[in-house]
Amino acid sequence: MKIVHNTETQDDPLSLEELANINAYWRAANYLSVGQIYLLDNPLLKKPLKLKHIKPRLLGHWGTTPGLNFIYVHFNRVIKRQKLNVMNITGPGHGGPGIVANAFLEGTYSEVYPNISQDEVGIKNLFKQFSFPGGIPSHCSPDTPGSIHEGGELGYSVSHAYGAVFDNPDLIACCVVGDGEAETGPLATAWHSNKFLNPIKDGAVLPVLHLNGYKIASPTILARISHDELEKLFVGYGYKPYFIEGSDPEMMHQRMAAVLDSAIAEIKAIQHEARIKGVTERPIWPMIILRTPKGWTGPKEVDGHKAEGSWRSHQVPLSEMATKPEHVALLETWMKSYKPEELFDENGTLINELTALAPTGIARMSANLHANGGLLLKSLQLPDFRKYAVEVPAPGQVLAEATRVMGCLLRDVMTLNYEAQNFRVMGPDETNSNRLGALFEVTNRAWMASKLPEDDHLAADGRVMEILSEHTCQGWLEGYLLTGRHGFFSCYEAFIHIVDSMFNQHAKWLKVSREIPWRQPIASLNYLLTSHVWRQDHNGFSHQDPGFIDHVLNKKATMIRVYLPPDANTLLAITDQCLRSKDLINVIVAGKQSQPQWLDMSSAIKHCTAGIGIWSWASNDHNDEPDVVMACAGDTPTIETLAAVDLLRQHVPDIKIRVINVVNLMTLLPSEEHSQGLSDKDYDSLFTTNKPIIFAYHGYPWLIHRLSYRRTNHKNLHVHGYKEEGTTTTPFDMVVLNELDRFHLMANVVDRVPRLTQSGAYIKQYIRDKLIEHRLYITAHGKDMPEITDWKWPSRPYNNSDNE
Amino acid sequence: MKIVHNTETQDDPLSLEELANINAYWRAANYLSVGQIYLLDNPLLKKPLKLKHIKPRLLGHWGTTPGLNFIYVHFNRVIKRQKLNVMNITGPGHGGPGIVANAFLEGTYSEVYPNISQDEVGIKNLFKQFSFPGGIPSHCSPDTPGSIHEGGELGYSVSHAYGAVFDNPDLIACCVVGDGEAETGPLATAWHSNKFLNPIKDGAVLPVLHLNGYKIASPTILARISHDELEKLFVGYGYKPYFIEGSDPEMMHQRMAAVLDSAIAEIKAIQHEARIKGVTERPIWPMIILRTPKGWTGPKEVDGHKAEGSWRSHQVPLSEMATKPEHVALLETWMKSYKPEELFDENGTLINELTALAPTGIARMSANLHANGGLLLKSLQLPDFRKYAVEVPAPGQVLAEATRVMGCLLRDVMTLNYEAQNFRVMGPDETNSNRLGALFEVTNRAWMASKLPEDDHLAADGRVMEILSEHTCQGWLEGYLLTGRHGFFSCYEAFIHIVDSMFNQHAKWLKVSREIPWRQPIASLNYLLTSHVWRQDHNGFSHQDPGFIDHVLNKKATMIRVYLPPDANTLLAITDQCLRSKDLINVIVAGKQSQPQWLDMSSAIKHCTAGIGIWSWASNDHNDEPDVVMACAGDTPTIETLAAVDLLRQHVPDIKIRVINVVNLMTLLPSEEHSQGLSDKDYDSLFTTNKPIIFAYHGYPWLIHRLSYRRTNHKNLHVHGYKEEGTTTTPFDMVVLNELDRFHLMANVVDRVPRLTQSGAYIKQYIRDKLIEHRLYITAHGKDMPEITDWKWPSRPYNNSDNE
Repeated sequence: MKIVHNTETQDDPLSLEELANINAYWRAANYLSVGQIYLLDNPLLKKPLKLKHIKPRLLGHWGTTPGLNFIYVHFNRVIKRQKLNVMNITGPGHGGPGIVANAFLEGTYSEVYPNISQDEVGIKNLFKQFSFPGGIPSHCSPDTPGSIHEGGELGYSVSHAYGAVFDNPDLIACCVVGDGEAETGPLATAWHSNKFLNPIKDGAVLPVLHLNGYKIASPTILARISHDELEKLFVGYGYKPYFIEGSDPEMMHQRMAAVLDSAIAEIKAIQHEARIKGVTERPIWPMIILRTPKGWTGPKEVDGHKAEGSWRSHQVPLSEMATKPEHVALLETWMKSYKPEELFDENGTLINELTALAPTGIARMSANLHANGGLLLKSLQLPDFRKYAVEVPAPGQVLAEATRVMGCLLRDVMTLNYEAQNFRVMGPDETNSNRLGALFEVTNRAWMASKLPEDDHLAADGRVMEILSEHTCQGWLEGYLLTGRHGFFSCYEAFIHIVDSMFNQHAKWLKVSREIPWRQPIASLNYLLTSHVWRQDHNGFSHQDPGFIDHVLNKKATMIRVYLPPDANTLLAITDQCLRSKDLINVIVAGKQSQPQWLDMSSAIKHCTAGIGIWSWASNDHNDEPDVVMACAGDTPTIETLAAVDLLRQHVPDIKIRVINVVNLMTLLPSEEHSQGLSDKDYDSLFTTNKPIIFAYHGYPWLIHRLSYRRTNHKNLHVHGYKEEGTTTTPFDMVVLNELDRFHLMANVVDRVPRLTQSGAYIKQYIRDKLIEHRLYITAHGKDMPEITDWKWPSRPYNNSDNE
Repeated sequence: MKIVHNTETQDDPLSLEELANINAYWRAANYLSVGQIYLLDNPLLKKPLKLKHIKPRLLGHWGTTPGLNFIYVHFNRVIKRQKLNVMNITGPGHGGPGIVANAFLEGTYSEVYPNISQDEVGIKNLFKQFSFPGGIPSHCSPDTPGSIHEGGELGYSVSHAYGAVFDNPDLIACCVVGDGEAETGPLATAWHSNKFLNPIKDGAVLPVLHLNGYKIASPTILARISHDELEKLFVGYGYKPYFIEGSDPEMMHQRMAAVLDSAIAEIKAIQHEARIKGVTERPIWPMIILRTPKGWTGPKEVDGHKAEGSWRSHQVPLSEMATKPEHVALLETWMKSYKPEELFDENGTLINELTALAPTGIARMSANLHANGGLLLKSLQLPDFRKYAVEVPAPGQVLAEATRVMGCLLRDVMTLNYEAQNFRVMGPDETNSNRLGALFEVTNRAWMASKLPEDDHLAADGRVMEILSEHTCQGWLEGYLLTGRHGFFSCYEAFIHIVDSMFNQHAKWLKVSREIPWRQPIASLNYLLTSHVWRQDHNGFSHQDPGFIDHVLNKKATMIRVYLPPDANTLLAITDQCLRSKDLINVIVAGKQSQPQWLDMSSAIKHCTAGIGIWSWASNDHNDEPDVVMACAGDTPTIETLAAVDLLRQHVPDIKIRVINVVNLMTLLPSEEHSQGLSDKDYDSLFTTNKPIIFAYHGYPWLIHRLSYRRTNHKNLHVHGYKEEGTTTTPFDMVVLNELDRFHLMANVVDRVPRLTQSGAYIKQYIRDKLIEHRLYITAHGKDMPEITDWKWPSRPYNNSDNE
């Protein structure tokens, strides 16, 4: 391979002794990695290797591991030499054995898992647990000390790394990117994160693109374009790439040491200059492109085929141990090539000369405090959310834009925590559009690229992060939260599906982390989903989908909260709850439009604390059985339900209606499944055991059935929701097309309340007439009828009302 | 702005007359675009503009539109001059008015929508329908002639464009990429599609990166990096970028014409050389970077703020018409600046000099046949799938890897359609891993980047497409299908969530297309999901999720099929069905492991035709009521159900069990909701009206409840499925942790069958003992007990059997 020497690096910075030691440490990590993949017993190969010492099922990924170990030992060197604060983020997901081996060599592993002691017994246990039932997975996971990055689905290492260093000015993230991972979309755009990194207030990411040539069987793109293209690509992404290419360990160690010295010096120089002179222009940060053979130092050839440097090294280069005894011998030769007897003493403890190479205490990458962010977490300073309350003298009499009100709360959260620098808001260019613009009274959009006079609220130290990549927003926020900070992600509802699988992985990380005693709780991941499915004013039928809630509810309910606040005051109360919570994923769905406000602040707090409740001011079944329960969840369904109640009470004065609003969807789950779920008794007392329930729900109607199917009165539950109808049209027509509107709700009540089915003919005719009138009106005028847009909940309802 | 002249282009290729005409055509398109956003009436401004002529709700995106119109008219020029076959793909989603305006100017719009005639009345109708209830959306959509690309969620233009030109050697895709869209991950990696494009057998994509500087309010990254970085980025991506930057129309027209001439000449030269000499190396294809002001030619200033060239032009630069009469005047001035009286005659018809500029017939981009791919669709030549049948002399007696068998079928589909060149298989480097390797007997992986001797089955004309980007695989396949070809996407089950939102958009496209008479049906989008949730051998709890099925079932059921074939022969029959179908999205979930085979081919065909059925060979309730119905869907649940049946029949010889297998999940839906749904009568006759149903399901258990909650016997339905448990462990332990295993199924039967609840104590003890034995065994040995791995359905079951 062609070696490109960057003239700025010093030649051969390592003395012969340093070189020998670094190489020995690398051999130790490689030895422990191979051992994890293969061995059940005989961990130091003190006895001749036999089939019985080898695991019955060989699982793991060797290919990427020696390169990861190589990078790790060199970072150890610079951490120690320059007293750096470095955390490690390993993109090549299945390189777990390497990262675990290094945590073990540093002693951290034994500190958190005392049974994996730094001796022969410990090594045996270390080997056995790997990819073994009841043990650890073959990739980095929450149980790996020093990791914040799951090695499952690929693509998020770079955004995690940037998220981790935002507001951590002394932190450097060593971010290894695999060349397979580099083909994913999320990774391909995350390189641009450097346009958002402030050299004064943020730390630095030092990406190491690790080219080893193959995915599973196909070559990787970046390993197979010309050197010139590869270099230009990363210059184009805004980096200064250093190339390290080859397979001779001695040369590679010298080159890596020289490049790392230069890269760290450049990072320090950039930061120093900015911190003295202020931010003048976007710096060009260094990065490293490391090209090594896949399965480096592994068997050169297996069964007559090339192994090292080929796709055949991707997973387990030697297998079929039971049927091919020569493979056992080959494995023994391979492992002995690392000379374990020179690396570990008689007890199986790493020899002192090598132990001395690793940093100590929290300088170890495996013990970096930021990688167990809960240790560093400071609670947010929160203002009293009640002070942002919308005055609601009576239900439905004033209008407000709920998210705009919430924006004021977020603004003051930003201010109160400005000194702590531990709160950021992410979104794909929708902060203003989602009416959270009050944030810009106290901060700006983070922006390090060039600016023009007409630009709106851009600054190097902005704390609102906007990039048209939901993946990057989510990745940054995950990295930020996992390192012990707080944040908020606002997104159009339909587009949040873009991060479905990222959400999965974070939810699973949280679930596993909770079960690991040494992992401390972190701040919750908070989503605000707005511009929701009920507003299609100029969209066609193209991407609308309220199904993120369904997706979220497939995860372990203990980690999940879904809130549908119907107005501004409930949104404030819920936002406060979310910002205080830990280790959860909170999903808030709320519209940004001007809408009627229902609850004053004290009612809102009561309602949000319960999560569900009867709205007695809208009901008239007091001290009596209702004829029908009208339930609603979501802002638009709440309006339509109340409008239907109003119409019904005008047209059928003696009907007894109970109105229930659900703000916390988890309350509908059985109490055995969720701590916030209603007991059957409480559920029955709300929903009755035998009356019809007309439930107007924000999303896909079957979700409410899925939450309720075990409840007594499920057979009488009739849910209206989004059923994939509606293209460009008015807000009210959207609900009509999906039969969630007041008229369809009313019609369903007439159908379900036995004593109305006969007498209801005139109401049904009224409803039909109204729907025709609506259709004619919007077709002619392009907007909703005044009787719809001007409708208000009556301020002094009904002469015959019994609820006053 | 700095103008970069590429020396290879000819200066000023347009004569003054051509220049004037092209500019006039552009003005006409701009005029019609503004008219769509604003006007209800007075379409040619023959009368002074009044408030009443203006729409009550102003919706649409002006910012990107004039640039799109500029690109369009210049492509028209080269199409005509050089008799090109060009289709248009417009990434900037909301530039709908421009694309619609051009389709109208070309006459295509009036051909498919006769009420939008090429006269004043037609223009009035054209204007009114835009972003108007009952009209068209503000973005490109299926109702836009010439479009295959929904302007909803951004990020897929480039992968769609490449998908469209694969195997279309004469086609050029003009692919406009917005600078907002360019920030998305899927777009950022899709540029690399050029490593898969064969200059002999494929057509060409000419990307036009349109920099207009802003997203909604934030600047875009690519518009704010240096010229040098931008150029290097695209050279790094493997393109030769031509820059066109400025705002003076005259200069810009000349420059665009010159660049387009050069770019097309280069494309032709690349293709010519390759088609004569064969493929020697990957060509460097041209691309265009067009930098124009946002809202170019729109109002320079509104209310004292800069409009043209600023983020304020993103949507509607002038609004508040009712309250700001000066805005009405400004709009009139703006629209009159295009001089409509020079462009349209008295009748409102485009003048002849301008009409003559557009191509005619199917050369019009709006009438390109590829953009209505169903017109070009040829049915696949399919082999008789029965010839791949696995011999199944009796249920459960032989083992096979279902997807490996399917691979043989796909191989022959590839061969039979080799001449037609209309079938491709996509997957993120998992073709072999998913055991579809037989494909490589007849084709290769498409690969145009450099090769090494150790590489496996790479070729420029390979028909298997592997890139580690599910987004790109899906985008390519959508583009390929929408232009009238066939394909297959194989993916690990967990990772398919990556394309959740792409699936949404394609499903919605299909739904709307079906309602448009001139759109012809296209081939279905077929997914094979394998490496499914039940195999976690070395994964931790990191990304596993069988919820894609749930996601899919939220869409309109008419477009959706979900199949869970339990063995190889059913997988063959289902694959054949899927490959024959049109306008559907078929999801097949099937494991790749060696597993017992249940049905011989003739039984498999019968079973797959019905989609659901009683497996009488496994049941013993003949001519009698069963004590319990044991239902299963999915390969792993089927094995566990049959193992449970076996154990039950050994331990409770007199129990009457009915075994039902579900291969087509849609059969569970009510017949009113889906054409394949069972009637209540048929459902009841299968599942009984009052017996316990123990249902073992592949995915999240509540999905089965959601499909069945209206059925008579729903209260007795007990579903076992994936409940988010299980980390690195054995296959059998995965089912144990989720209580889907034979023992838990058996225990549930004992609990639910009344006459067993008393006498079942000993069986419950047996089950407890077995589960403890299992746990001890895997902890000690790292693999499943032989009695699990060796279990076989009895070949001559049960002395007491009544089913022979």
